[in-house]
Amino acid sequence: MASKALAIIAGVGPGTGASIARKFAKSYSVVVLARNPDNYDAVVQEINSNGGQAIGISADVSDSRSVNAAFDKIQAQYPSSKVAAAVFNPGGGLVVKPFLELTEEDYSTALGSQAHGAFNFAQRAIPLLLQARESSEHPPTLIFTGATASIKGSAKFAAFASSKFALRALAQSLAREFGPQGVHVSHTILDGVIDIPRTKSWVFEHEDAKLSPDAIADSYWYLHTQPRTTFAFELDLRPYIEKW
Amino acid sequence: MASKALAIIAGVGPGTGASIARKFAKSYSVVVLARNPDNYDAVVQEINSNGGQAIGISADVSDSRSVNAAFDKIQAQYPSSKVAAAVFNPGGGLVVKPFLELTEEDYSTALGSQAHGAFNFAQRAIPLLLQARESSEHPPTLIFTGATASIKGSAKFAAFASSKFALRALAQSLAREFGPQGVHVSHTILDGVIDIPRTKSWVFEHEDAKLSPDAIADSYWYLHTQPRTTFAFELDLRPYIEKW
Amino acid sequence: MASKALAIIAGVGPGTGASIARKFAKSYSVVVLARNPDNYDAVVQEINSNGGQAIGISADVSDSRSVNAAFDKIQAQYPSSKVAAAVFNPGGGLVVKPFLELTEEDYSTALGSQAHGAFNFAQRAIPLLLQARESSEHPPTLIFTGATASIKGSAKFAAFASSKFALRALAQSLAREFGPQGVHVSHTILDGVIDIPRTKSWVFEHEDAKLSPDAIADSYWYLHTQPRTTFAFELDLRPYIEKW
Amino acid sequence: MASKALAIIAGVGPGTGASIARKFAKSYSVVVLARNPDNYDAVVQEINSNGGQAIGISADVSDSRSVNAAFDKIQAQYPSSKVAAAVFNPGGGLVVKPFLELTEEDYSTALGSQAHGAFNFAQRAIPLLLQARESSEHPPTLIFTGATASIKGSAKFAAFASSKFALRALAQSLAREFGPQGVHVSHTILDGVIDIPRTKSWVFEHEDAKLSPDAIADSYWYLHTQPRTTFAFELDLRPYIEKW
Repeated sequence: MASKALAIIAGVGPGTGASIARKFAKSYSVVVLARNPDNYDAVVQEINSNGGQAIGISADVSDSRSVNAAFDKIQAQYPSSKVAAAVFNPGGGLVVKPFLELTEEDYSTALGSQAHGAFNFAQRAIPLLLQARESSEHPPTLIFTGATASIKGSAKFAAFASSKFALRALAQSLAREFGPQGVHVSHTILDGVIDIPRTKSWVFEHEDAKLSPDAIADSYWYLHTQPRTTFAFELDLRPYIEKW
Repeated sequence: MASKALAIIAGVGPGTGASIARKFAKSYSVVVLARNPDNYDAVVQEINSNGGQAIGISADVSDSRSVNAAFDKIQAQYPSSKVAAAVFNPGGGLVVKPFLELTEEDYSTALGSQAHGAFNFAQRAIPLLLQARESSEHPPTLIFTGATASIKGSAKFAAFASSKFALRALAQSLAREFGPQGVHVSHTILDGVIDIPRTKSWVFEHEDAKLSPDAIADSYWYLHTQPRTTFAFELDLRPYIEKW
Repeated sequence: MASKALAIIAGVGPGTGASIARKFAKSYSVVVLARNPDNYDAVVQEINSNGGQAIGISADVSDSRSVNAAFDKIQAQYPSSKVAAAVFNPGGGLVVKPFLELTEEDYSTALGSQAHGAFNFAQRAIPLLLQARESSEHPPTLIFTGATASIKGSAKFAAFASSKFALRALAQSLAREFGPQGVHVSHTILDGVIDIPRTKSWVFEHEDAKLSPDAIADSYWYLHTQPRTTFAFELDLRPYIEKW
Repeated sequence: MASKALAIIAGVGPGTGASIARKFAKSYSVVVLARNPDNYDAVVQEINSNGGQAIGISADVSDSRSVNAAFDKIQAQYPSSKVAAAVFNPGGGLVVKPFLELTEEDYSTALGSQAHGAFNFAQRAIPLLLQARESSEHPPTLIFTGATASIKGSAKFAAFASSKFALRALAQSLAREFGPQGVHVSHTILDGVIDIPRTKSWVFEHEDAKLSPDAIADSYWYLHTQPRTTFAFELDLRPYIEKW
């Protein structure tokens, strides 16, 4: 029996990452990565309880050794599984400060998480995605999560915007290099507050003013299922009442 | 019995428009508009033969009277139907010429089709979409078809790029005005050759080097089904081997 | 004696156009175009009184016959003068209205002024600029004036944004076609309120919160003087306190 | 006697940086920074020989201690001088490789030079520019040098594009924070090959197909002299025959 294909999702907490994991778990074995197992334990257990397959691996995307160890574990555990999808979704690096109060560490942390992290993740994910081309139902897919700060460097967002712009550049470059090789690389722009536990208390005038993690996950799945004749690179998502 | 909701699609020939009509006909009664009935007769007949509902109305989008007459007909024929989706997809205006050989008529034709046409279409479609908000399963949706020329004014594309830039501006403005009112306005960038009868003879190095009209239609349907918490405005679609 | 080179400036009122005329009149004979002679009479007289050379011609840029008549007059009056610079700066078409209150005429007026107007102007100016390549001190230059609405379609700006996006597309296309032929085509984005008689009464928290027409004119002159090894296409100008 | 104001230019080799130093030395004492004194010795000597004032300081912009030491030296040597302009122009980080051959070090080097380097430089330059507001003839100015890779992530440019996108984000964020405080922050996009010793042997069909370092320097000076009512943020510069 052929083993189920894998989806690897980096950056899984109780919000978007968990929704993506649930969505992709309907078709694939999922591997979720986060620094702190507390972030993924609940969703891993939930998926396994509901008849899906999921494992969590603790990893710090900003550290290439940690990323390499995680991928080594994945390959040891699933020696014959193909990687159908990889999603880079870590949230780190968002700090909002006047520039002269921003520390070198703030800046390094943002770039470490979003730029170096994406580099480390893509270095290991892409060879696996290339191997999956023949066997995959859908073109193997690599999706990067962006934000408003991916296309606008607002005042006091110097660190986060630098890191999200860098991530978008990486995504573009990979799309242009690996698209023609049959790997679908996409980048999303999540332009609004996401409805996650951390933002539950943020009240807006309209009740449904926040991005739905499940709807975001649907979008990622939609991107994944596009045929290679018709790849989307970039998708901007925002609540209907968002100013932009 | 409640009447089926409507999808109105302007710019239907044997390619993208027909695929969109087929896709939306799975859920809605479709009304297709084109200047020449030859362009839509086949798909209208096909939909009706397959158990769907479709009518075609001859209309020139660049002429507001023609657009008004078409919408008057739609409302007369479907007095109790709500309009769940409207798609603006006319292909007119593509002329590639050195600027000094471009005629005033070339330029007017392009703007007439893409800019005035979209204006005329939106003026009539939006009030109907607003009326459909309560009854629609998905947020009422207005989608405009763009092209590479929507974001890049290439040499010799002065007329087409002017018209496609104008269309994109209109789409942005409508998204910002009517999104908060619950109407989902989107714009797509079709960045590549579409696989339609007219391009059948265009041979590329790779067999699947052209955008699939059916996959484009799937994308439009996907946009239509997004919840209002999580609207995409812009989606760029291109074949995997496209240079961009 | 060789006759002085010409600068032709369309869209001259008491603000930016007049400042551009004054600036270019230091080196060239200037021809200013506006629908209403009241708009240019003062600056024409001022330039001539100060030892410069200027004439005004009444022209409606949105009407190709009117533009052709104006250029015929220019060529009759200055049969041996080369056209060193042409600036397209008409202000028409700015209307801010909810989309459903916007009339077809509002939309046509905006496109007529900004898109068709620029087309008409460029059709006549470019052959003259091409002829001036050998004799010009600086590469012959064609500059189009844009606005915030050239890159953002805000709510209620559907007409103006459509027209300004179209104008930018035209400028890009011309830059890509005629740059390699030695004509410098540029586009500016004036992102803020301009300090002109009409806006004198608009008071902001900061005294110098408005774009200076003279400083804009300096920028246009700077663009004009760039060597062809180092052409700028786009320049965004805004007051220091502007939000963007 | 009041001491001359300073211009601090980071990233000075025999090309653009040297031209900028020469240009700004006509009005200011210049301090040039580069890792290797071989890069700046010639231009420093040339400026001093021609009646200007220049010093060079060896500094590695990617290392905050090195940047801090350099600025400490500047302040020790010119205790009463105001900093009228600061230019960030280091060239490091350009590596063109298939992504899977790109090393972590390649990626870190690019971000170190362009992103961390700009962060380190701006952290020290901005307080000095803020202090110069009252005494400066022109608004104190901070200019960052970008490239094609600042707005396009091409295949095989993952490292350089990431770093240049990050730099642009930083520049935008600083412009939005410090513009309203009276400091002019700009970003240039040098879209083409620059005519420097290293590219002398690159022959194109057209003789003047390369960006002129002196013309680039003129552009930087032009940006510096803009009044605060009329700041440009971004300027794209390319040879007339460049494809874009």
